[in-house]
Amino acid sequence: MTKKNRSRLGRPPTIKDPVRTICDAAASLIAEKGYDTTSLQDVANAVGVTKAGLYHYFPTKQALFETIVLDTLEELYRYASAAIAAETDHRAKLTSFMSAHAAYFSEHGERYRASFFGRSGDELANYTPQQVAARKAYTRLLEELLENGVRDNAFVVSDIPTFARGILGMLNWMARWYRADGPQTAPQIAESYAKTILAGLSKD
Amino acid sequence: MTKKNRSRLGRPPTIKDPVRTICDAAASLIAEKGYDTTSLQDVANAVGVTKAGLYHYFPTKQALFETIVLDTLEELYRYASAAIAAETDHRAKLTSFMSAHAAYFSEHGERYRASFFGRSGDELANYTPQQVAARKAYTRLLEELLENGVRDNAFVVSDIPTFARGILGMLNWMARWYRADGPQTAPQIAESYAKTILAGLSKD
Repeated sequence: MTKKNRSRLGRPPTIKDPVRTICDAAASLIAEKGYDTTSLQDVANAVGVTKAGLYHYFPTKQALFETIVLDTLEELYRYASAAIAAETDHRAKLTSFMSAHAAYFSEHGERYRASFFGRSGDELANYTPQQVAARKAYTRLLEELLENGVRDNAFVVSDIPTFARGILGMLNWMARWYRADGPQTAPQIAESYAKTILAGLSKD
Repeated sequence: MTKKNRSRLGRPPTIKDPVRTICDAAASLIAEKGYDTTSLQDVANAVGVTKAGLYHYFPTKQALFETIVLDTLEELYRYASAAIAAETDHRAKLTSFMSAHAAYFSEHGERYRASFFGRSGDELANYTPQQVAARKAYTRLLEELLENGVRDNAFVVSDIPTFARGILGMLNWMARWYRADGPQTAPQIAESYAKTILAGLSKD
């Protein structure tokens, strides 16, 4: 192989917003087939670049997956924190948090499913420190919302961390059963959950 | 290889309750490493039999995993239906259902995690008709409990299938974060969720 050929093989692919395009294609494959059975070659084929081209952006499948998960956690945080900031009432903030989480999931279903259900086994054991921090920041957003509401007597929650995880469980599990062609949108379902929970939290 | 040797290699392993033992070992590996990265050889090593011995019981990894998932769904059904039958009050039945689900999960954590989080990607697309039926039967158990409670004015639920999935989501997601060394047992956490939900369902 001549030097010129080698440099052609290794040049960056000429696709628009390559990192996002590669991550989207990979998320779609991982959401469907799972992390372990998706190869970098599958991703390269889906994007229409060579594997060498892919290496410019992601040296390993692990690095690619880490980017997808981290982006998802950070985007989810931005969706939810913007939704909370738009409300003044504590109870409305909880409804908006849940609705925004569901909106993110319904708008970015493949990224979401790839991130939360793409890798089997003990998923959290594989988290990088950055991912752990992003996951924790998201959970804290909900916990602080609940803490502020309890402080101002907007509702009663006896064990905030446990309760926050229950709310996140209701929302995360939607990725397993929700179908976009059903009678309700994902945010509508989240709002119906919020309504019941808020009614339940009014009592001691 | 002589005929005698071949028949020795292929004889059933002399382990007690071999199907359960093999499934337990496989569930433990799948819960930790995931379905795709667990091999039948790994399972044979964990049980202490030859791969040929394993084949007496399970011709493929897929068949072994299907047995684990189906057993888990059926055992979960037995736990929950026994718990419901032991109560007469509709509200107590809902609490018992949730508590029994959490008890099953905490007593059979590896089977549970292997079944619900062991296989990545579009898990339901891989379900056999028997698994689909078992999953549906379990969901119906909860839906019927809610239908009976609504009929007898024990509580108000506007969309029972959606609400049932929310409850199952809270419970299933516990497998992602619950640690046995925490301050509360899994059934105690489930009961705290039930208390809030029941308070919420009292209102229209």
